[in-house]
Amino acid sequence: MKVAIVGVSGYTGKELLSILHKHANVTEIKLYGQQSVGHTVWDIFPEFDHMIPNQHILPINEITYDDDIYFLAMPHGQSIDIVDDLLKKNKKIIDLSADYRLDDPKLAKEIYQLSYKNDRILENKIYGLTEIETKKKSNLIANPGCYPTATLLSLYPLIKNFSSFIENISTVAYSGTSGAGKKADQNLLLSEMESNVKAYNVLKHRHEPEIKQELKKYSDIEIPFVITMHLLPIKRGIYTSTSIFLNEKIEFDSLFKAYENAYKDKHFIRLRTEPVELKHVLLSNFCDISLNLRNNVLVINSCIDNLIKGASGQAVQNMNRLFGFHETTGLI
Amino acid sequence: MKVAIVGVSGYTGKELLSILHKHANVTEIKLYGQQSVGHTVWDIFPEFDHMIPNQHILPINEITYDDDIYFLAMPHGQSIDIVDDLLKKNKKIIDLSADYRLDDPKLAKEIYQLSYKNDRILENKIYGLTEIETKKKSNLIANPGCYPTATLLSLYPLIKNFSSFIENISTVAYSGTSGAGKKADQNLLLSEMESNVKAYNVLKHRHEPEIKQELKKYSDIEIPFVITMHLLPIKRGIYTSTSIFLNEKIEFDSLFKAYENAYKDKHFIRLRTEPVELKHVLLSNFCDISLNLRNNVLVINSCIDNLIKGASGQAVQNMNRLFGFHETTGLI
Amino acid sequence: MKVAIVGVSGYTGKELLSILHKHANVTEIKLYGQQSVGHTVWDIFPEFDHMIPNQHILPINEITYDDDIYFLAMPHGQSIDIVDDLLKKNKKIIDLSADYRLDDPKLAKEIYQLSYKNDRILENKIYGLTEIETKKKSNLIANPGCYPTATLLSLYPLIKNFSSFIENISTVAYSGTSGAGKKADQNLLLSEMESNVKAYNVLKHRHEPEIKQELKKYSDIEIPFVITMHLLPIKRGIYTSTSIFLNEKIEFDSLFKAYENAYKDKHFIRLRTEPVELKHVLLSNFCDISLNLRNNVLVINSCIDNLIKGASGQAVQNMNRLFGFHETTGLI
Amino acid sequence: MKVAIVGVSGYTGKELLSILHKHANVTEIKLYGQQSVGHTVWDIFPEFDHMIPNQHILPINEITYDDDIYFLAMPHGQSIDIVDDLLKKNKKIIDLSADYRLDDPKLAKEIYQLSYKNDRILENKIYGLTEIETKKKSNLIANPGCYPTATLLSLYPLIKNFSSFIENISTVAYSGTSGAGKKADQNLLLSEMESNVKAYNVLKHRHEPEIKQELKKYSDIEIPFVITMHLLPIKRGIYTSTSIFLNEKIEFDSLFKAYENAYKDKHFIRLRTEPVELKHVLLSNFCDISLNLRNNVLVINSCIDNLIKGASGQAVQNMNRLFGFHETTGLI
Repeated sequence: MKVAIVGVSGYTGKELLSILHKHANVTEIKLYGQQSVGHTVWDIFPEFDHMIPNQHILPINEITYDDDIYFLAMPHGQSIDIVDDLLKKNKKIIDLSADYRLDDPKLAKEIYQLSYKNDRILENKIYGLTEIETKKKSNLIANPGCYPTATLLSLYPLIKNFSSFIENISTVAYSGTSGAGKKADQNLLLSEMESNVKAYNVLKHRHEPEIKQELKKYSDIEIPFVITMHLLPIKRGIYTSTSIFLNEKIEFDSLFKAYENAYKDKHFIRLRTEPVELKHVLLSNFCDISLNLRNNVLVINSCIDNLIKGASGQAVQNMNRLFGFHETTGLI
Repeated sequence: MKVAIVGVSGYTGKELLSILHKHANVTEIKLYGQQSVGHTVWDIFPEFDHMIPNQHILPINEITYDDDIYFLAMPHGQSIDIVDDLLKKNKKIIDLSADYRLDDPKLAKEIYQLSYKNDRILENKIYGLTEIETKKKSNLIANPGCYPTATLLSLYPLIKNFSSFIENISTVAYSGTSGAGKKADQNLLLSEMESNVKAYNVLKHRHEPEIKQELKKYSDIEIPFVITMHLLPIKRGIYTSTSIFLNEKIEFDSLFKAYENAYKDKHFIRLRTEPVELKHVLLSNFCDISLNLRNNVLVINSCIDNLIKGASGQAVQNMNRLFGFHETTGLI
Repeated sequence: MKVAIVGVSGYTGKELLSILHKHANVTEIKLYGQQSVGHTVWDIFPEFDHMIPNQHILPINEITYDDDIYFLAMPHGQSIDIVDDLLKKNKKIIDLSADYRLDDPKLAKEIYQLSYKNDRILENKIYGLTEIETKKKSNLIANPGCYPTATLLSLYPLIKNFSSFIENISTVAYSGTSGAGKKADQNLLLSEMESNVKAYNVLKHRHEPEIKQELKKYSDIEIPFVITMHLLPIKRGIYTSTSIFLNEKIEFDSLFKAYENAYKDKHFIRLRTEPVELKHVLLSNFCDISLNLRNNVLVINSCIDNLIKGASGQAVQNMNRLFGFHETTGLI
Repeated sequence: MKVAIVGVSGYTGKELLSILHKHANVTEIKLYGQQSVGHTVWDIFPEFDHMIPNQHILPINEITYDDDIYFLAMPHGQSIDIVDDLLKKNKKIIDLSADYRLDDPKLAKEIYQLSYKNDRILENKIYGLTEIETKKKSNLIANPGCYPTATLLSLYPLIKNFSSFIENISTVAYSGTSGAGKKADQNLLLSEMESNVKAYNVLKHRHEPEIKQELKKYSDIEIPFVITMHLLPIKRGIYTSTSIFLNEKIEFDSLFKAYENAYKDKHFIRLRTEPVELKHVLLSNFCDISLNLRNNVLVINSCIDNLIKGASGQAVQNMNRLFGFHETTGLI
């Protein structure tokens, strides 16, 4: 299999390269970039010296159409032209940006200022949350956001099975700084973030509509939901803490079974009996989930590595699903 | 004024010493300890060399009764004998442990395995959340816990004024490792906590009943409430993120005014228009609070330094209130 | 006393404001800036809200000449015009940049690309390493660099007393990221520096000539010296580890006494019997020093807070010396 | 190949398990422990759940003699009895403790309080610094310490080729906290080490004699050498900064060539043209080295991951060498 990574120099591009390099079915990786054009892999990632073959980063406008799959790891808003081209040539695409995650073009315009040649592209794509089955077929996979991945996986079995029991759901989510990318930004300096914690984009974070869009698909009942995002003084990871008020009692056993059933064949979901710890998932594609119930209050914690399960790992898992490989290929 | 610190070698004892040393009305500080007996201040705190007068730590059983106020900064469960003695001698006490925070002796027995010679001591003490007015007079002040301080201050004006609008409240709170004290513990090693985040004591943390006890005093309406505690890979600080579902709309202006009114003369509460950042309160006695409202969802963030406003700073503020000093004396 | 801070928005400007605000002899502080003009203290430093009086940052070209002393805390190369003006008006200046630290105009041109209207300004200034006595009188004080402060203080008594015993000296010094300032820089992102350590500007760091210039003043014998600078994944602090090979044995007692004599009246130097720890000096104006000797090998460790003793604290100490205040005023 | 890990619950045991699990030639891994006996791999390392087969930790006294190689990852002083037994049965051993690193039994007794049934075991073992060729054959390999690995690899080509040019060598080395193991220790709490840096065991660290012992083997000329150890507020990594005074000039090109020649077939040594950065080697078996020369002063920086190249990675590399596998098997 031949694959291309478009936008290799950022954090998700780098993780893609690292994972795909070890993927048993990948024989060739082409790398495209913008500022990094002309440089080699070892120039921009000295840690890959002697680990990953050195090769040049090519300019995006020289993309060839002879690869089997294209991973787009560019900043939001830059995938659209490339995607249209690639789809015309009948190529498979996994887009790691937010450009195709939303289903509603109006919302995509409002939140991300995006417009499409043909709005139907949004309904035809697959929203690639890999542990949730889909019957859709499409050459275009929108890879979910990091917060949505951790949040949706922690809520899916609950909402699928117990939506009528739920009064409302509030999630509090914490991210490491790499979620904000590699661009120079005074607020993300170690000098500014050391020992700091802060909420940001409160009640207006762009991942909230994405989460709500998917939650609606799990149940006919619409459940009040809010999520608040925070930044932590660490590089990697997403940690969520969700509080759910129930209007009717659920038995813990039936709740836990619902989670076990939903995820029984899903290698990368681990149901924990102790509260999840971020360190257990760092540098892995796992999503750990723990549940605690007391009377009518349910607390769910989940965590992922934002750059792997929340981005590049899940993207490769999507490729595995698309091509019929085992879901863990390259990821364990 | 002559003051005594009983239990000086832990994190809160150290902060007390540091604050009281600069307090304009304090002329003498006696220091009592357990393992640290025989050592001097400079032995156990090399950073205080040339900053704070050196003196010996005395054994607790040599406590004299000639001081004006006694700060008890011992592990939970060790204050009770000392308190009884001191009260008999008509001494003023600020206890930083949890031993007198609860009002209900049954709950104190259940949660902390505490028993008192006379249970009425619990109702006669003052719960010293300094920004909440009290008309009670008492020689015994129970200094609030760190999570309760950050949570209660962020909720007081809301519940006081809008309790009938509230469906339920869920708080997610994060603490630095110093909240767990200075005792050797494998789980708190830098090697184990670096880059880690974890929930703990989920739905059974001992600060939750303390918070609920106080919330009830702010309104006749009992509001469903849950709090989930987490540990962060930083030394100091408490950060809270509270989600509130409303059953009726509140105007942001009237909400904000309620907070302004409640705290208009309170030097250490800062209402922020941007989401609060932990770094702005570290090493200070401030509690920063920010409010965000969208339709029927309200998000409140607050933060404090757990060792200062969440412990020793508030203890000194309690002393200031008790003796009629300005609330900022020694604290700014 | 009326003081002015020129360049208040950087890390050293902020520390100056914080220290001078508590200084018993300072009655008024004027603040000048560049990008921060029009903003207030509380805008740019939310942590100072309710702590330090709010006031506007004024443009540099509106500097008035009615203040008693001017602290210049601007990026290197920007002080020169202002200094000339202020000296003409007979004003006292403490410059925290590197612009006047070197004595040799050729070196200043070579290393910092600086040129002066009159080169004699360099020989007339005082190099303000506060623990080293000077008989010079000058209105212009060049505040030493952070690495030079920690290094020179740790070596002064040795070289003053034992230069003929020394074969060579190699210092390895580590700094927190705040030493590089507050400007957005990809390499200083928390995401890039977390868990990282790196040497930089090896054998060409600009503080090395400054250190060598001063070392020469302590002894007639020129001693081979090298220093290597490193960056640590922490915000604040300088830590030095110096290895010295001796060609003749020194007795530890006489060595230690030389240090005690040199610093016997110096409040901010603490000679430690255990290896120094950075945390003991953070947020203080202290320089801690420890000595270890084995046969003909001597190891000296020292540490300071780079923003206080390595910049703003020492600047205020220089002001204290200039005006005859006690050296600790405002600093303890 | 069947392997056994004795002492699996510490940091090096865990890394061994993680590496050997992926090693192409390893078909079975037996695990032995002390406190962890009765528990399973997933109990003690929740992060290995679904990654590494779960199995029970067996008591050390049930060691069988049917494995091909035994990795001993126990605290210092506990290997000796086991080693004697295993050698009698003609088994191959890689000991990660310090018990067999020294050649001189007197020194081993003095520094580590070790005594052996037969002192000749020390001269018969191999000191397994994998990039240095050895002609010795032995079933017992002493895996080098973390500081010695980083230091010796950075100095070997220099001393081998230019010892007569060298006046003296001083190394300053910094380690993350995992080097001190996983035992509860107040001084290693995150609360105590956050933002801290400290030298320790100055001029009496036990790795210094180990380094000197090996340095002597690289040249007939004995060169004055000193190393000072420090602790950093990070979990993993060793960083060294070595200053060398020369008595005669070396050309940079010939120096660099000596390093290239020495390491031309050594996959895990990377000669860097920029100063090495710790993050580039973390979680890998690489040792990065950079050289800077100015007149008669040479500065060498090197870094490794202390738990991999400084312990378990090198141990597996030693196994690869012992059995004739490619040196990178399991390690890349």
